[in-house]
Amino acid sequence: MRNRIITISREFGSGGRTIGRETAAKLGIPCYDHELIDKIAEKTGFAKGYIAERGEYAASSSWLANAFADRDYNGRSNQDYLWNMQRQVILELAEKESCVIVGRCADYILRDTADCLTVFIHADKAKRAERIVKQYGERDDAPEKRLKEKDKRRAAYYQFYTDLKWGAVENYHVALDSGVLGIEKCVEILTSLY
Amino acid sequence: MRNRIITISREFGSGGRTIGRETAAKLGIPCYDHELIDKIAEKTGFAKGYIAERGEYAASSSWLANAFADRDYNGRSNQDYLWNMQRQVILELAEKESCVIVGRCADYILRDTADCLTVFIHADKAKRAERIVKQYGERDDAPEKRLKEKDKRRAAYYQFYTDLKWGAVENYHVALDSGVLGIEKCVEILTSLY
Repeated sequence: MRNRIITISREFGSGGRTIGRETAAKLGIPCYDHELIDKIAEKTGFAKGYIAERGEYAASSSWLANAFADRDYNGRSNQDYLWNMQRQVILELAEKESCVIVGRCADYILRDTADCLTVFIHADKAKRAERIVKQYGERDDAPEKRLKEKDKRRAAYYQFYTDLKWGAVENYHVALDSGVLGIEKCVEILTSLY
Repeated sequence: MRNRIITISREFGSGGRTIGRETAAKLGIPCYDHELIDKIAEKTGFAKGYIAERGEYAASSSWLANAFADRDYNGRSNQDYLWNMQRQVILELAEKESCVIVGRCADYILRDTADCLTVFIHADKAKRAERIVKQYGERDDAPEKRLKEKDKRRAAYYQFYTDLKWGAVENYHVALDSGVLGIEKCVEILTSLY
């Protein structure tokens, strides 16, 4: 039997990571989130902070300029190399075991190769703002600004490497509003769908 | 206690109507789909065929031209009048009883007034094409063309009256791919969420 994978894409502050962890715990399968970063670090030699940042987010400013800068003689940037390694780690995981994978375009990477349930978690801005302040504390920037910046960079990264629109309903088997439904109900639905 | 309403928006051929009916049957509450058209016909004197068509779809050609033609001395078109009556019927239903309402922008109309679960049902084109041929038979136009035309006109109608994007993930509490999950599983999720 093929391994069964749940991929979770999520708006910043929507609780998608928590939903992923709790779903995996209920199903008794591993959840790869930070653990993915450790694996990619092992494979590539990149620092974990660099991977966390550049393996899921477009650069904060002049993303397009960056995308075409610092390329090797084959025209590949560090970020392209990271994309390829990340892709390989995700494919290997899906080959090895059933699991939950949070973020990092896993839905796209596994679309043809695994028995995959692709999930998108979202919530309205006010609920997400409240959540990030609770989770990550206050910052100089207002929470609304932090949300907008993070989501914009995630969407740009996703679009650049997949050529699909991040958060477009047709790319996910299930999309849930965690702000209205609550974390627990989302976990229950995903568990029942597995 | 306030009435609880499930609104179902759906891509043409996704089985959204069937999911609505079966969910309502399981919950023991009424489902308004064709029944809504009967009620609106009673209230307005419009023919049922006209309501079915113009209460959910933009006109097939030159929609914008149509939208501004045939207006009364207050600048209202037949379609605006129908929109207002339809809105009133939906608000009255939500006031009267818990129910499932399929289509007709009910999600938007009830957003502030009812305890509402807003649902979007979609599926990939191949699955929907197969379904409409099975349900409605062959036509002169290829099923893919029929899908595209219907969805385009639903989206235009929705956008015109709500100023929101039809099928955008943030407008729904739950979005489900009925092609991958299957009708029965969709019904199960909605029943469990009620």
